[in-house]
Amino acid sequence: MNPNRIDVTALSEQLLGPWAQVRKDSRARAARPELQRDPSLGMDEHRERVLSQLHVLTNERAVQRAFPAEFGGNDDHGGSLAAFEELVAADPSLQIKAGVQWGLFGGAVLHLGTEEHHKKWLPGILDFSVPGAFAMTEIGHGSDVANVATTATYDPQTEEFVIHTPFKAAWKEFLGNAALHGKDATVFAQLITKGVNHGVHCFYVPIRDEQGNFLEGVGGEDDGLKGGLNGIDNGRLHFTHVRVPRTNLLNRYGDVAADGTYSSPIASPGRRFFTMLGTLVQGRVSLDGASTSAAKIALQIAITYANQRRQFTSTSDTEETTILDYQRHQRRLLPRLARTYAASFAHDELLTKFDEVFSGRADSDEDRQDLETLAAGLKSLSTWDALDTIQEAREACGGSGYMAKNRFNQLYSDLDVYVTFEGDNNVLLQLVGKRLLTDYAAEFRKLDTGAVARYVAKQVGSTAYHRTGLRSVAQAFADVSDERKSANFFKDPANQRELLADRVNAMVAEVAGNLRSAGKDKARTAAKFNENQDLLIQAARAHAELLRWEAFTRALEQTKDENTREVLTWLRDVFALTVIEDDLGWYLAHGRLSMQRARTLPEYINRLLARLRPHAQDLVDAFGYTQEHLRAEIASGVEAERQDEARDYFRKLRASNDAPVSEKSLKKVKA
Amino acid sequence: MNPNRIDVTALSEQLLGPWAQVRKDSRARAARPELQRDPSLGMDEHRERVLSQLHVLTNERAVQRAFPAEFGGNDDHGGSLAAFEELVAADPSLQIKAGVQWGLFGGAVLHLGTEEHHKKWLPGILDFSVPGAFAMTEIGHGSDVANVATTATYDPQTEEFVIHTPFKAAWKEFLGNAALHGKDATVFAQLITKGVNHGVHCFYVPIRDEQGNFLEGVGGEDDGLKGGLNGIDNGRLHFTHVRVPRTNLLNRYGDVAADGTYSSPIASPGRRFFTMLGTLVQGRVSLDGASTSAAKIALQIAITYANQRRQFTSTSDTEETTILDYQRHQRRLLPRLARTYAASFAHDELLTKFDEVFSGRADSDEDRQDLETLAAGLKSLSTWDALDTIQEAREACGGSGYMAKNRFNQLYSDLDVYVTFEGDNNVLLQLVGKRLLTDYAAEFRKLDTGAVARYVAKQVGSTAYHRTGLRSVAQAFADVSDERKSANFFKDPANQRELLADRVNAMVAEVAGNLRSAGKDKARTAAKFNENQDLLIQAARAHAELLRWEAFTRALEQTKDENTREVLTWLRDVFALTVIEDDLGWYLAHGRLSMQRARTLPEYINRLLARLRPHAQDLVDAFGYTQEHLRAEIASGVEAERQDEARDYFRKLRASNDAPVSEKSLKKVKA
Repeated sequence: MNPNRIDVTALSEQLLGPWAQVRKDSRARAARPELQRDPSLGMDEHRERVLSQLHVLTNERAVQRAFPAEFGGNDDHGGSLAAFEELVAADPSLQIKAGVQWGLFGGAVLHLGTEEHHKKWLPGILDFSVPGAFAMTEIGHGSDVANVATTATYDPQTEEFVIHTPFKAAWKEFLGNAALHGKDATVFAQLITKGVNHGVHCFYVPIRDEQGNFLEGVGGEDDGLKGGLNGIDNGRLHFTHVRVPRTNLLNRYGDVAADGTYSSPIASPGRRFFTMLGTLVQGRVSLDGASTSAAKIALQIAITYANQRRQFTSTSDTEETTILDYQRHQRRLLPRLARTYAASFAHDELLTKFDEVFSGRADSDEDRQDLETLAAGLKSLSTWDALDTIQEAREACGGSGYMAKNRFNQLYSDLDVYVTFEGDNNVLLQLVGKRLLTDYAAEFRKLDTGAVARYVAKQVGSTAYHRTGLRSVAQAFADVSDERKSANFFKDPANQRELLADRVNAMVAEVAGNLRSAGKDKARTAAKFNENQDLLIQAARAHAELLRWEAFTRALEQTKDENTREVLTWLRDVFALTVIEDDLGWYLAHGRLSMQRARTLPEYINRLLARLRPHAQDLVDAFGYTQEHLRAEIASGVEAERQDEARDYFRKLRASNDAPVSEKSLKKVKA
Repeated sequence: MNPNRIDVTALSEQLLGPWAQVRKDSRARAARPELQRDPSLGMDEHRERVLSQLHVLTNERAVQRAFPAEFGGNDDHGGSLAAFEELVAADPSLQIKAGVQWGLFGGAVLHLGTEEHHKKWLPGILDFSVPGAFAMTEIGHGSDVANVATTATYDPQTEEFVIHTPFKAAWKEFLGNAALHGKDATVFAQLITKGVNHGVHCFYVPIRDEQGNFLEGVGGEDDGLKGGLNGIDNGRLHFTHVRVPRTNLLNRYGDVAADGTYSSPIASPGRRFFTMLGTLVQGRVSLDGASTSAAKIALQIAITYANQRRQFTSTSDTEETTILDYQRHQRRLLPRLARTYAASFAHDELLTKFDEVFSGRADSDEDRQDLETLAAGLKSLSTWDALDTIQEAREACGGSGYMAKNRFNQLYSDLDVYVTFEGDNNVLLQLVGKRLLTDYAAEFRKLDTGAVARYVAKQVGSTAYHRTGLRSVAQAFADVSDERKSANFFKDPANQRELLADRVNAMVAEVAGNLRSAGKDKARTAAKFNENQDLLIQAARAHAELLRWEAFTRALEQTKDENTREVLTWLRDVFALTVIEDDLGWYLAHGRLSMQRARTLPEYINRLLARLRPHAQDLVDAFGYTQEHLRAEIASGVEAERQDEARDYFRKLRASNDAPVSEKSLKKVKA
């Protein structure tokens, strides 16, 4: 039936990426029922279950990988995240609670602390004898970490820091492990010594005694039920003049001497802040991977079902149509499949980059900035896409998609918070946008005056060329209503790249031009920036989409099997062209596409989808998740069984001569 | 601050629509804690709670409205749905379980049964002594009701129907009241008598005895946990040669005499089927209203919060910016506010139309068809929009939006199934699309040959005019880069209407043209239809958007207060222009807008949003929901309190001379 069937095994291996074995091991773990979610449990039992699951992970030494060898780890940063990401298939609560303990809490000690801290605290963190909270966010300040209001004031008399919550808005909020299990916490506070506020630093603060009671001066509340992730005991904390030794300051990037003198290896307070926060990038990197895994699971369920489910007779009187044969169903699922492939390949590159920086193999300032920009852009897209894909997958399975036993809703509810935690997606995209603006300005600075003049002239010329539609008129003449020429244009990767890259550049240039007109006045600049905020965020999205396209295209070069490469190329084309289709208005309004070409695009995409359709099952099977990961009755084959039984019944009935005739057919005979 | 403040009270009254008092009464009920959801309850207790809440509704005579006076009702169909819709604010489970009992189960007896049935069964249905299931959907056939496989074979010897489930795929599935509480059921099955299958009919079938055990031949299972609506005991049922008296056939549209002779007032089996199913339109109508109410609640929470929450200092060093002042935040919430207003006004028209048809005041075939098309289109849009709006509202509230106490996730999970039940949205939109095609063909049939020739010539001329971009070139000359002219164009309702209507017509004409080329061959026609399925569904969406626009525009004429009308006009413009912006590619590719105009559109929308921003709170307050309905801590004023406390703290600190200076400001002084 499919002479050009893809090589599922090889593709599966390619999709596992650079840490294939680590992923396989983690998937094997995620396949074990005792590490999975039990949907019958209420919040309290779910929390207990996840707590005990974390001990299982600890005992199996599944959590040490990122830590130094002397603490039993492998200094393997990329592998650590790869393993972590795959836990989403067991239970996102298990994943995120593990992330709180070893990624955030342990990560703060590892990355912001120094040797003494590591020796003192990492063993308890790693063997989970000391569960901890990562107390950064305050109810009054989520995304704006620089303005948290908790203070850590140095007292030279006792050589202690006094951690204090000055008002309700400064309560630490939404902290995993804070409601019940946390014994200690890494607390972010404004470091004040000798009357000077040196900005946000991180302090190691014990919060509960051995009996689980709050220590003096520490208080808190349980966040209670959340939209999802209810296996985690999120809560809030507040501190009333809580004293910790001077040495509890995690002092890698800033220290206070016994006499209260502040020192830091990083002179600029701004750069210091961003360096400290930079260590948090691993959260974003791992959410990018976890979200992509969740999207894969949802698609594997929905496409398997769509390949078995039949509904309505359209071409035959007796045989119903398999729903994946409907164009609309292809339109709903296959572009999301293409996007998920793009996200998967892009994530592998992000993870590699992360590993290079965190291993120290390539960790210049620029590398770190590139990593942060990449992580912010990709995390935003993939966490949103996961929700979008899970939702569409659930709808594509109709009422069955709504049953808890088919997984979608729980997955959606758990993943929901990924779009606003570890950096709200809109805020992250704005950061990406600002980086694009900086790069744009730097381009200008590098050029000498003559070059600038030439550049400007070229830009003006190019703008005129696009704005007047001259370019699209040229395209129209090139195509002369020949749809094949138009298709050839769209499938050429050089054209795809130009369309995607050009959009980023043009949007950034437009924002930069608009901002320049504000001049030097602070209020006017702020107002101008705000007037361009939406466009800047669009530019950032467009940038991340380009990066995904590039990763997908590079992955094609790694695909050995020819049939597989051909099918993946169609999939890459669908990715590129649906991105362009979604913003078609921009491409036309800015003269990048002619009306003629734009009109042929939807139909060309539809033809590509029909071409991909026979490969859809192979393409999701290549994700490599088994029934133990999917855990959705509708993807288990029951639908095909039911259909076979029904068909068999009707076949026998027709053969028996007992079948009732339909009133409709009788009327036709009479007429 | 707002000299042109809108008249919130008058607008609130207008938004309540034609059944204002009924809505108010139902809202008063929804505000009572004992009728609301208790989030701490697990599935079993939630089911029990909702069961007892239904008895409260019964005792307060809140459910009889749609039924005839002789059964204690008011024959008030529109009012009945208005009251039902508002229950969503208490608990969607309560709403839908009430809908199952009195809308579906009771509605089947009322609309498909005749006098004897009414007398016999309506009293028990109305006083809730007989909870019932509406057994239509089968696991093998959801949207394709005509092909359900349960049979009802007439046995003239005993004058009974034998209800039978021939195989697993024919199990009745997802039925509210079926798992636990249902005593009887209205069962849809293929009516077979004298060897002829007369198509799907509805039968009244007892399923449980007084002790709650299944009667002989009846079996079933509990659906267990669902994605939401867990206060309803959904389940599946199957029948093994279950015998019911001949008179248990609900025989309004088809009857079987004692000797087995079939008769029907509707000769065509197809028309008969659609007439019977037509009575189900009330489900769609009411979901349209309920979804719109849910979207209002979500927006009222998120916009109230966005008006209090501050984050990041942009224009001032001490004062943080209110998040609704950010352009991006306006972009996220205000177009959805506009859409919700459009949906609300469109729903009022739908409900009025429904009332006219069901009261018999205007119930011609055409009226019924119009009602069904309108309901299918609007229900699809509003159920999707509710999910989209709730999700964006939740994200716009950040981590707080994810807390159960702030309502969003539960509302989302409950409403999720609205997009696929009472007609899957994609299937419904395809029905709308087919109706548009039929109307298009009818237009042609009405014209004489000369008129057809002229029409075709005009179409060809118009197509050429659009396709070549001549029209947009003309626009470009009209605008000559004057943005004001472009803005004037966009705000002219005649232009908005033309843009919206023209898109529907052009899309339908394109599909019709494509289908014509298939000729008479059945397989080729089916294939051609499938190749145009996505476009047809787009046309249906576009049609529903046009209907919303028209309803919004008519509502403006009803708005007396001038300031209010002006603000609502901006909101209508935002609705129209974001619909156009979302499909800008189509408008440009088909020559309806010039590149110049298209480029000015996003910025013009942004300016409208900034103009609406000061009215945002009034616009959501006008929805009229109180804290008892919102039940979201973040909308209660706690955020403003926290901010006031924090500001007060800093104000005092600055005055005290104890405030630490920032390292950053020290560095600036030194430099």
